[in-house]
Amino acid sequence: MADRYREAGVDLDAAERAKDRLKSLVASTRDENTLSELGLFGGLYAVPGEVSDPVLVSSADGVGTKLKVAFLSGRHDTVGQCLVNHCVNDILVQGARPLFFLDYLATGAMDETVVTQVVQGVAVACKENGCALLGGETAQMPDFYAQDEYDLAGFIVGVVSRDRLLDGTRVGAGDVLIGLPSNGLHTNGYTLARKIVFDQMGLRADDEMPELGRSVADVLLDVHRSYLAPLTPLLETERIHALAHITGGGLPGNLPRVLPQGLGAVVDRSSWAPGPLFRLLRRAGDVERDEMYRVFNMGVGMVLVVGAEDADEVVRELTAAGEAPWVLGEIESGDGVRYAE
Amino acid sequence: MADRYREAGVDLDAAERAKDRLKSLVASTRDENTLSELGLFGGLYAVPGEVSDPVLVSSADGVGTKLKVAFLSGRHDTVGQCLVNHCVNDILVQGARPLFFLDYLATGAMDETVVTQVVQGVAVACKENGCALLGGETAQMPDFYAQDEYDLAGFIVGVVSRDRLLDGTRVGAGDVLIGLPSNGLHTNGYTLARKIVFDQMGLRADDEMPELGRSVADVLLDVHRSYLAPLTPLLETERIHALAHITGGGLPGNLPRVLPQGLGAVVDRSSWAPGPLFRLLRRAGDVERDEMYRVFNMGVGMVLVVGAEDADEVVRELTAAGEAPWVLGEIESGDGVRYAE
Repeated sequence: MADRYREAGVDLDAAERAKDRLKSLVASTRDENTLSELGLFGGLYAVPGEVSDPVLVSSADGVGTKLKVAFLSGRHDTVGQCLVNHCVNDILVQGARPLFFLDYLATGAMDETVVTQVVQGVAVACKENGCALLGGETAQMPDFYAQDEYDLAGFIVGVVSRDRLLDGTRVGAGDVLIGLPSNGLHTNGYTLARKIVFDQMGLRADDEMPELGRSVADVLLDVHRSYLAPLTPLLETERIHALAHITGGGLPGNLPRVLPQGLGAVVDRSSWAPGPLFRLLRRAGDVERDEMYRVFNMGVGMVLVVGAEDADEVVRELTAAGEAPWVLGEIESGDGVRYAE
Repeated sequence: MADRYREAGVDLDAAERAKDRLKSLVASTRDENTLSELGLFGGLYAVPGEVSDPVLVSSADGVGTKLKVAFLSGRHDTVGQCLVNHCVNDILVQGARPLFFLDYLATGAMDETVVTQVVQGVAVACKENGCALLGGETAQMPDFYAQDEYDLAGFIVGVVSRDRLLDGTRVGAGDVLIGLPSNGLHTNGYTLARKIVFDQMGLRADDEMPELGRSVADVLLDVHRSYLAPLTPLLETERIHALAHITGGGLPGNLPRVLPQGLGAVVDRSSWAPGPLFRLLRRAGDVERDEMYRVFNMGVGMVLVVGAEDADEVVRELTAAGEAPWVLGEIESGDGVRYAE
């Protein structure tokens, strides 16, 4: 039988097989509120009864051109983790814990192995974050994406009681900023980083990254961290006035998003060393210092805003939990981000 | 000041300006449960208090290569409507009404006019469907997407009381299938349709489509219908046993998704005429009849499964509401879809 759709580049049977292979992965993320299995039109999730006056917090995000590093190195099992963790952090900053996640994966051709690896990464991170992978869309779009390329986006929904919502109203002048380290570029600034590393430095994915003792692919594919586990106990105590996830736009682009009108942040850049990867990118790319802070996270993955009286204790508790927090600045009258140094 | 990120193809200022232009559009979709404005990390939506034992129903989807027609014709204001309506239909089939929507828009370069047009379409359809546009992500991914191209995905969350959930359990042998017309290809089969229209027939976007008296772009960009308005009154009466949204995979790919084990559908293809566009595609593309039904919706946008005793009345009510419903088959023991003709 002639199969015009397949000739045009869309393989419905491969899509069905990939869906079958994903079912058990997805099933591993189910929890007691998950009411549906993969394959229905919509994913079903019961609103948890134990949350009083529940507010849903949702976010959409992509992995950006970090995907290009996955393509270059043929490693597709980590980008899904980056995506989920990114989304988890984005709703965590409003006090929400994740309920469920959906992914959108668009490919040029349906390579079942690649699709399975990508969704495996998504499922692993969903499980780690206690988040059900409720569904998703895998789209075959030939002559849209290159043969071995794809785009990946994710959508998360979490929940928080209305009286626990972090909406900036608790923040006041004199509050202290505590940083938690990133473990690399996370998912931002890859267009510039790739240009510097691959074009200007002329490196390839399996070359060793100078000064770092690891391959370029290893360094650039480091999984975007989730801050859910270390921050959950603190969110239960109400000592956190605000949280900022340091993503695209860096500290100056993200800190002001969680501060009320009339308040700004002063950041002491001498309080930490951004680490060798950022030094390397700055030098090799001839990037000005302020632009580095606008494009990259510069070693800061998450910023906590806490009352001055609680700062020492919060640092102590996070340290005891295995984190490496430090005080990086404070809140003052004004707006935006000002650098003390 | 040197701006390495902009040189690498990412313009953070353009992204900010586009975001500002979108704020009022997005604001027009707010409802009493929308607690956040654009620009926060996560969108906030209160769980509606009037729904007892609420189940969240969510879905992710894309527009597929229908976007290529938007690129060819330079018309970007309709694809967002297709996306929202598609998602609304996908959760409607489980009995849910939409609460909120998020979009993911990934572009090669940030063309503020195009981005605004796309999101305008999203916002218009959100408003029509009583759905808050709660947020989204606009990603700049140079050397990933061609200069004037983009991908667009969406994510919807709706709600239904657990006892109103359409989960297939109400369906029985002898139930009647009622079709509601599609108004074109909706968002499926575009890879094959474009190949036939643009490659095999050699037409351009502004040529007249033979036999249809409208331009190729007009025909191929027809907005995917939402079935929310005509079906909402029926869902309140519990006469609907199941609903199937006829998307990728056509009738045989979608009808079985909403039927319980042991039941199949028999479809009488002589009960309707698919319309001139489908006849044209079949003839010009030399596509076999069964494949046409596997790739395209063939004029059927939504199928209702109702009790035999209610079928006449449901057809009458839908007709009175301005729809053009017809009986296209019934439920029988078995599985999958069998054609009576």
